[in-house]
Amino acid sequence: MKAAIVGASGYSGEALVRLLSLHPKIEELIVTSRSLAGTRLSDHMPAMRHIVGDLSFSESDPAALAARQDVELFFLALPHGVAHSYAQPLFAAGKTIIDLSADFRLNSTQKYAQYYGQAHPAPDLLKSTPYVLPELAAAGWQTSQLIACPGCYPTSIQLPLVPLLKAGLIQASGIVINSYSGVSGAGRKLAENFLYCERNESLQGYSMPAHRHLPEIEQELEKAAFADVIVQFNPHLAPINRGIATTIVAKAKHATIDTLYSCWEKTYQASPFVSLLPSGTFPNTQAVAGSNRADLAAVYDQRTDHFVITSCIDNLVKGASGQAVQIMNLKYGFDESCGLL
Amino acid sequence: MKAAIVGASGYSGEALVRLLSLHPKIEELIVTSRSLAGTRLSDHMPAMRHIVGDLSFSESDPAALAARQDVELFFLALPHGVAHSYAQPLFAAGKTIIDLSADFRLNSTQKYAQYYGQAHPAPDLLKSTPYVLPELAAAGWQTSQLIACPGCYPTSIQLPLVPLLKAGLIQASGIVINSYSGVSGAGRKLAENFLYCERNESLQGYSMPAHRHLPEIEQELEKAAFADVIVQFNPHLAPINRGIATTIVAKAKHATIDTLYSCWEKTYQASPFVSLLPSGTFPNTQAVAGSNRADLAAVYDQRTDHFVITSCIDNLVKGASGQAVQIMNLKYGFDESCGLL
Amino acid sequence: MKAAIVGASGYSGEALVRLLSLHPKIEELIVTSRSLAGTRLSDHMPAMRHIVGDLSFSESDPAALAARQDVELFFLALPHGVAHSYAQPLFAAGKTIIDLSADFRLNSTQKYAQYYGQAHPAPDLLKSTPYVLPELAAAGWQTSQLIACPGCYPTSIQLPLVPLLKAGLIQASGIVINSYSGVSGAGRKLAENFLYCERNESLQGYSMPAHRHLPEIEQELEKAAFADVIVQFNPHLAPINRGIATTIVAKAKHATIDTLYSCWEKTYQASPFVSLLPSGTFPNTQAVAGSNRADLAAVYDQRTDHFVITSCIDNLVKGASGQAVQIMNLKYGFDESCGLL
Amino acid sequence: MKAAIVGASGYSGEALVRLLSLHPKIEELIVTSRSLAGTRLSDHMPAMRHIVGDLSFSESDPAALAARQDVELFFLALPHGVAHSYAQPLFAAGKTIIDLSADFRLNSTQKYAQYYGQAHPAPDLLKSTPYVLPELAAAGWQTSQLIACPGCYPTSIQLPLVPLLKAGLIQASGIVINSYSGVSGAGRKLAENFLYCERNESLQGYSMPAHRHLPEIEQELEKAAFADVIVQFNPHLAPINRGIATTIVAKAKHATIDTLYSCWEKTYQASPFVSLLPSGTFPNTQAVAGSNRADLAAVYDQRTDHFVITSCIDNLVKGASGQAVQIMNLKYGFDESCGLL
Repeated sequence: MKAAIVGASGYSGEALVRLLSLHPKIEELIVTSRSLAGTRLSDHMPAMRHIVGDLSFSESDPAALAARQDVELFFLALPHGVAHSYAQPLFAAGKTIIDLSADFRLNSTQKYAQYYGQAHPAPDLLKSTPYVLPELAAAGWQTSQLIACPGCYPTSIQLPLVPLLKAGLIQASGIVINSYSGVSGAGRKLAENFLYCERNESLQGYSMPAHRHLPEIEQELEKAAFADVIVQFNPHLAPINRGIATTIVAKAKHATIDTLYSCWEKTYQASPFVSLLPSGTFPNTQAVAGSNRADLAAVYDQRTDHFVITSCIDNLVKGASGQAVQIMNLKYGFDESCGLL
Repeated sequence: MKAAIVGASGYSGEALVRLLSLHPKIEELIVTSRSLAGTRLSDHMPAMRHIVGDLSFSESDPAALAARQDVELFFLALPHGVAHSYAQPLFAAGKTIIDLSADFRLNSTQKYAQYYGQAHPAPDLLKSTPYVLPELAAAGWQTSQLIACPGCYPTSIQLPLVPLLKAGLIQASGIVINSYSGVSGAGRKLAENFLYCERNESLQGYSMPAHRHLPEIEQELEKAAFADVIVQFNPHLAPINRGIATTIVAKAKHATIDTLYSCWEKTYQASPFVSLLPSGTFPNTQAVAGSNRADLAAVYDQRTDHFVITSCIDNLVKGASGQAVQIMNLKYGFDESCGLL
Repeated sequence: MKAAIVGASGYSGEALVRLLSLHPKIEELIVTSRSLAGTRLSDHMPAMRHIVGDLSFSESDPAALAARQDVELFFLALPHGVAHSYAQPLFAAGKTIIDLSADFRLNSTQKYAQYYGQAHPAPDLLKSTPYVLPELAAAGWQTSQLIACPGCYPTSIQLPLVPLLKAGLIQASGIVINSYSGVSGAGRKLAENFLYCERNESLQGYSMPAHRHLPEIEQELEKAAFADVIVQFNPHLAPINRGIATTIVAKAKHATIDTLYSCWEKTYQASPFVSLLPSGTFPNTQAVAGSNRADLAAVYDQRTDHFVITSCIDNLVKGASGQAVQIMNLKYGFDESCGLL
Repeated sequence: MKAAIVGASGYSGEALVRLLSLHPKIEELIVTSRSLAGTRLSDHMPAMRHIVGDLSFSESDPAALAARQDVELFFLALPHGVAHSYAQPLFAAGKTIIDLSADFRLNSTQKYAQYYGQAHPAPDLLKSTPYVLPELAAAGWQTSQLIACPGCYPTSIQLPLVPLLKAGLIQASGIVINSYSGVSGAGRKLAENFLYCERNESLQGYSMPAHRHLPEIEQELEKAAFADVIVQFNPHLAPINRGIATTIVAKAKHATIDTLYSCWEKTYQASPFVSLLPSGTFPNTQAVAGSNRADLAAVYDQRTDHFVITSCIDNLVKGASGQAVQIMNLKYGFDESCGLL
């Protein structure tokens, strides 16, 4: 099978190249980049010298890509506001598209406009696009031609919370979420704020109280809770390359720590990429770096009748590239873990 | 004036040696260490080679220290459960003692026993010991002979919250606090968990939901609120040497972001070490590293009617050694900033 | 095929567990640890939760291991001075042993005694043990029952230098080698020097001028040069988890940069794990982290008629665990890259 | 006394602002920046909020600065190729100028053109400009109106080598120098190479074999040796904010480690900023970070008859801003350490 990665020059794109290059079901990989077309991938991503051989970046023209007869599957590792301009012609040409951007994550075009500063460019296509967090998505999404991958913060938040909201074990109101992300979450953007000397030895919040991932988080938690959900979401940057550590405070609803863990166990018993840590131990970003695994744990505070829930993922893998490969695996009937261990 | 640092071999002790060595009012410094007595300080703390000259660690015998006629002021940079055994004889000998440990911070001997795992060793002395966060302490503490310095997390939490609780601008219930600390907060303890390779590229929570600083935090917030205060306090470790970044969610009580800032401005207008950042910007641990300054900021979320408050301090300076020097300055009538810029 | 890792609790052992757990030719893995016997591996190495299942550490008794009928292949990831006590009974029992320690690397028992502070414990076994850097080892080693893996620094040094010395392109005398290693090179040793706060923001030399790897380096360079080789070897620690960056200055012997690169190309044309970077670019430890690849480059300085040669490896992979797996692959006739991409 | 820092927006400029703001002999500080003129310094350099008050960046027009009657002393913290355009009018106006750039460091205009890619813009002024490394500069430089500060790498190299070359204790030929620098050495340049994720976990060489500091290093070593000096200089980047660690290999010339240390002791006995570490211990960048101190040590290798010399400085302090303040102190007759402890 052939696959193409459109926009492979960023950190998520690079992580996706690594996974697909080594994936046993992918025999040929096309990688495109507007800025790097014509150059060898290994010159820009030296960590993959022994994996990618002479693979070069090709042009990123949407129409030309849509016209290729030999490629059926496209991954879009593009910025929001750009991805749709590829998704539309590829969709029209009958291709399968796994979109890592935010363009098709929000059901509400109004929220898209509010948080991304532009009218949604393809509202019709949006309607038929499922949002797929593989462990939690409703059955049937595999037949969709275009699939939206969740964002990194939302993944670290939905995995612990969605089952608990569905089961009614926590209150839907008053949830407080603090997340710390590695700097790769900002991509390869050239801004003073992301220079080594600026972020080293630095812990700092940003984009509070209305980060762009907020409507995505609330949208999915509302589906789980069958109720309005308004959360406090506090994102921060920390001096690590990869990883998100999320800590969530949620009020228990006649639930104990045992019922919480039982709910998680039931939900994730067949999931190769969700790991439950004993209560009283705490996930560590280092332990998930480079992996598609999410680590979850929780403690119960009887003083406050709240659960304190902690989760860690690699923002570039389970939060982006690995999740996209997991979606591919499930859509095409491969083993869910294929190429992801 | 002569001063002694008892237990100068840890990270806080080291930071205190630096400050007092360069302090214009201290003409001679005595440093003690049970483990390093007889060795030169510069051999263990090479960063201070050009500052401390031939200063050597001396013995740490409590009785012998109490008997010294030439030293009036003692800083205790000792672990909890050890500090009191110095504080008692020094107090009896009429010395002034600034204690950086937790031994005299909690008014409740019951809470001390619960959180520190042993009966309080000196309940009588405890009663007469004020807890002094200089910017917030009630007038009159300067006449006390023994003074308890606040802990690092509590300092980063009280500075933003105490004025707001006193002024009734936030609700005393439902406060959620997330803090990330640099690894120096763990001291020089030899444990696998604090090895470079374990903490590098790692973000991880610990000691939830009942960290030892919790009763100290609640005790002081209760004094400010004139009400019971039960907070959710989530401490974490991050791969930086120094700094605490705290993010607090608190419900507004008929207050706006302007009234919040006005309250802070009024409280801290004469405080050289509290800096208010504009709403929408965020404190950064890097900016306070090595300094006695606390940076505070807040945003208001109209969706939730909550404030999100962020603060940063250097855990070893404003959270320990610098605070102790600031207390000394105020007690002895020196300029508050003396030796701290 | 079954394999056992003896002493799997260190960083190299952990890296080896990861590689062998995912290796397509290994169907069962036994891991032993004196200190962790009876406990689950995933509790100590959380990064491998989704890979190792319920694998537990078993006892490390040499005689019992030697008596196991079901295991033919043993990896020794033990400290020097300990490995031999396993190698001897395993050898006697006819097992195949790949030893990652220093116990069988030096041909000279005198040098072993001098640099490792004890008489060589098994001089007879030493004589029949080949030192195998797979890209450079003389043919025929595959029939040996016990194989010594090279050290991390020596690997980063031999790969660039051995072909040049063999070809007579550089002078054997006057070679100066500077290496910087990630902190994992020190293992999980509990010493103040390896605490996070001590190594963070720190660059520092150590063990000059006679690091333990020096005799190993010189021994192998001498074999290549057919001459005495005395090098200046300067090891340092840098605040990264994994990687060695080596910079070598060697006098050209009527050679140009083109002849140097031709020699390397000829030597490594069939080697999947040696990558040659264009002259004027420089290897980066980040690019080899987690990989079994070595990156090499060189520039020629006409002012001094010297080559400046740079190489990078991951000390735990190409410098230890990956190299051991590569040796296994070659010994058993698997593809050289099997399980290593 | 008033002083102006021209080009205060870079890392060296920022470090200089800190030192001069707290310097007891400077009562007013003017800071200029072409890009930040009109904005408050504390908004860009939040670490100095409590030190600099409302200080704002002013315009950087050379003529206007030269015309100011109230300022006598100017520090140029500008890129090479820009500094001279300020130095010339300021010199003509009779001002004192301490130049931190490379514009007046090289005696040879030919070398300047070769290494900096442009003809020297002010050869006449160059002739009368002394190069001042305070511990080593020939007497009499204090009367000069324009003074060139050494570069960071050259400072870490000259301090150990110049006395030894002057005393004839090492050979002038065959010196090999390896240096690792913190990332702040690259300044605030927006290039992908200096993004956090690119430099974190990365050790990498660059600019070999002809870094721009090479002619400066050789020029000063030649003055000391009274002979041609051609060195091998290998610069690298390491993931720390501040610091240079230099390791030098030099052949002994009938000298022992004791004569080497005696020579250093004699040279630096009155120098507050050079610290000699016992042979067998090794300087650490962490120990000099934020300080104007240089730490030196050496070992003798009898196998090679070479010394291995190690030195550490903070590239932004002893390698730039601190050195400039030290020069000011000496030129104006202040205590050499004034404002530098």
